Amino acid sequence: MEIKSIQDYYPDDLSYCYGCGRLNEQGHQIKSFWDGEETISHYTPKPYHIAIPGFVYGGIIASLVDCHGTGTAALASYKAEGRQPGSEPPFRFVTASLQVDYLKPTPLNIELELRGKVIEIKARKVISEITVSANGEITARGRVVAVQMPEKMLLDNSK
Amino acid sequence: MEIKSIQDYYPDDLSYCYGCGRLNEQGHQIKSFWDGEETISHYTPKPYHIAIPGFVYGGIIASLVDCHGTGTAALASYKAEGRQPGSEPPFRFVTASLQVDYLKPTPLNIELELRGKVIEIKARKVISEITVSANGEITARGRVVAVQMPEKMLLDNSK
Repeated sequence: MEIKSIQDYYPDDLSYCYGCGRLNEQGHQIKSFWDGEETISHYTPKPYHIAIPGFVYGGIIASLVDCHGTGTAALASYKAEGRQPGSEPPFRFVTASLQVDYLKPTPLNIELELRGKVIEIKARKVISEITVSANGEITARGRVVAVQMPEKMLLDNSK
Repeated sequence: MEIKSIQDYYPDDLSYCYGCGRLNEQGHQIKSFWDGEETISHYTPKPYHIAIPGFVYGGIIASLVDCHGTGTAALASYKAEGRQPGSEPPFRFVTASLQVDYLKPTPLNIELELRGKVIEIKARKVISEITVSANGEITARGRVVAVQMPEKMLLDNSK
């Protein structure tokens, strides 16, 4: 049985995110899964996603942290309610605050691994810590404060 | 006389950044200038740079904050030394830490304005605060700790 990522369960009209929307053909389409008590995602930056030749651009790392953070928030929220992703109502988070510390240069041409840990979970807010690793070495650490998508965004979106 | 952006003065081999490198054809190519005591940059996200339809993706906003922060650091460093950009040696900063608070959804199809203020400037480190505005309204606030590019990156890069 193929295990779907959390992003594969986002409603179609909320699946155009440039970072993780499965329907955004120009986007990164990152996918987040449970791996034990942590969440995990993999992404290989494109050759032009560079800061200087040989090293990954920090804005791409921030994007990966961002979307793996909102994905982690959704995964954790289903789990907290004892529900399977895909059951109603869907969880879809947006980022309220993003922090990334770049510990060392991240080499290009390597599949990066993101790992997420839930630090705090409340009704509409989930805080997670995300690491980014290349070759088993952590190169960046992030913290994402994710909040359930405000209804205003959904209403505006439906216009 | 056309005023060049700080990114137009980055050395050629350090001008491939996906966010602001003038030689990265796939990148955002953002450009930062002085505007009085603040720095300024403008960027219009692409139609596919969305979080959900109608709103700009947070990872793009983080990328703009990141590169305008390093650009602001370089601008401020030349100014602190009483030198013109383009004089030797060049200043080229990378990001050590990036913080972005998303205050409200950022509408798409609008030219965004970034403004930077230098908060702290030391020999090799510059901290700046960056705002992102759409239609004159601030939608995100960022803080960038920029450090002069480590020689290790340059050495690795020259291999």
